[in-house]
Amino acid sequence: MDIKTTADKIQNGDRRALARAITLVESTRAQDRAAAAALLAELGTHRQALRIGLSGTPGVGKSTFIERFGMMLTAQGLRVAVLAVDPSSTRSGGSILGDKTRMDLLSRDPNAFIRPSPSQTQLGGVARRTREAIALCEAAGFDIVLVETVGVGQSETAVAEMSDLFLLLLAPAGGDELQGVKRGIMETCDMILVNKADGDLKPQAMRTCADYASALHLMRKRPQDPPDFPKAVAVSALEDHGIAAAWDEMQALATWRKDSGIWDARRTEQARFWFHEEVRAGLLAQLTSDSAVQAQLNALENDVALGKTRPGQAAETLITQFFPRNR
Amino acid sequence: MDIKTTADKIQNGDRRALARAITLVESTRAQDRAAAAALLAELGTHRQALRIGLSGTPGVGKSTFIERFGMMLTAQGLRVAVLAVDPSSTRSGGSILGDKTRMDLLSRDPNAFIRPSPSQTQLGGVARRTREAIALCEAAGFDIVLVETVGVGQSETAVAEMSDLFLLLLAPAGGDELQGVKRGIMETCDMILVNKADGDLKPQAMRTCADYASALHLMRKRPQDPPDFPKAVAVSALEDHGIAAAWDEMQALATWRKDSGIWDARRTEQARFWFHEEVRAGLLAQLTSDSAVQAQLNALENDVALGKTRPGQAAETLITQFFPRNR
Repeated sequence: MDIKTTADKIQNGDRRALARAITLVESTRAQDRAAAAALLAELGTHRQALRIGLSGTPGVGKSTFIERFGMMLTAQGLRVAVLAVDPSSTRSGGSILGDKTRMDLLSRDPNAFIRPSPSQTQLGGVARRTREAIALCEAAGFDIVLVETVGVGQSETAVAEMSDLFLLLLAPAGGDELQGVKRGIMETCDMILVNKADGDLKPQAMRTCADYASALHLMRKRPQDPPDFPKAVAVSALEDHGIAAAWDEMQALATWRKDSGIWDARRTEQARFWFHEEVRAGLLAQLTSDSAVQAQLNALENDVALGKTRPGQAAETLITQFFPRNR
Repeated sequence: MDIKTTADKIQNGDRRALARAITLVESTRAQDRAAAAALLAELGTHRQALRIGLSGTPGVGKSTFIERFGMMLTAQGLRVAVLAVDPSSTRSGGSILGDKTRMDLLSRDPNAFIRPSPSQTQLGGVARRTREAIALCEAAGFDIVLVETVGVGQSETAVAEMSDLFLLLLAPAGGDELQGVKRGIMETCDMILVNKADGDLKPQAMRTCADYASALHLMRKRPQDPPDFPKAVAVSALEDHGIAAAWDEMQALATWRKDSGIWDARRTEQARFWFHEEVRAGLLAQLTSDSAVQAQLNALENDVALGKTRPGQAAETLITQFFPRNR
């Protein structure tokens, strides 16, 4: 692959070049990693999009919401890319984006680009390649990059850490017991969208929305928020209700953050965060790519789990053995 | 210092030996680190205590609560150690344990041991030396080790990760706006104690308690909890109300977790967690103890913050420069 040619094609909006480049950044082969790094360096960092993270468990209507939301944006002349982060290796239930046909209209829209989530996944790698795929979409001139994740494990946190706005899509809940939102994630979300505010479910959706609004209200104010955020709003993807209003709210929040300087500060903070994550991950990868180190790591972890040794002692053993101070 | 003699003294309940050993684990000097490691290895891991984490912002009455709670436990024949994790370098307001005189009775109780928090602090090191101080107190035969932290930054999470039971002490709040609990921390706490349920504040405390009970109820059930946990209870440290009941709840939760095998699984998980943290921290420490590496790390972080390079690219530059794959 010629890096310069590919970069030009991507910047000129060639969708196949973009798709191939995303495949490249998804690869774990050393040769592909090097090419991906060269391509990203060639593309630079000057074009940027509004990065929206969207988390929701299977069944809340994510694909319907994304289709409606995306179509609304493209109708306004905006170009929209949709990426998926799915930490599960199986496709059953979780990876809605694995099936483009569920977003039939949007997938055929020339101003939209939908990328299903890759199959084999490890979280560290997922975060990296998702950030790189975002960078590729930005270089390709998309105005909005929507990153979708199922609300499982650390993927939500990772997506929140790479988003300008982070949204949580929820279904109406029957009783308060059923509203299973992880507490940690409420800390990071900017807006809760309660979907299915339509038909028989509408009253439930409104109650659920009020419940979440008061739960959010109970929590500590964040300096990065205007007074009325984070907020909970009810939407119906099916009937296309409330989505334009939700978009207005997103834009208001974005404007507020940009005007207050929080937008840039947040992106800088995120870049620093990912740099340190990459250094940590890279060091560990170097360490564990050595099979002798890996064997010792496993043996020591086992000793620690059995209480034979303390975590600090075991770590010191490993490090002094394989990575002495005087290199 | 003779390791064997010190270990014997600690195991025989010599409080001065224990205090000196804690000073040793708090030291960052290489020679002291080696002695601390040898001492911990000599002491082994067979004696263990109930580890209770307690978080609460300044002003909620932590010292009064700890004094009452500690005195109640020692009256039952239990030996109680109190440690502090305070990530702030200043003592103003935060570090209640910096002032033993606020726990006058408990500090003079022969069955209690109170250790103020050390002054200079970095979080990684704080977690490590607190875990080592816990181990020393356990070796000294304490039945309960209470680890106190102010609810700031990552210290709460670190304390939660080294506790068998994690409690949040809160003050009554006037309106729902004022109840500033970080959302993330509700995810990890086992019990919320609303203090100052006495005098004029009692009605407010009861309302605050009910608010938190319903907020906890709204959240997702955790597999490590019996059906009625996490729960919120009202206490008055001043009037010594509700503390015995809270202790009954803690014991009920402990028994439930022990019977269900969750207790051991949790400790094993925590040991694994800290092992990997120690490996990560140790690797980074090795890397950054080299001034050339540190300079390059700072330069690259700056480039990343300015958007001149991407996090992954910068990390790769650093790692290939200083830690090539083929050692």
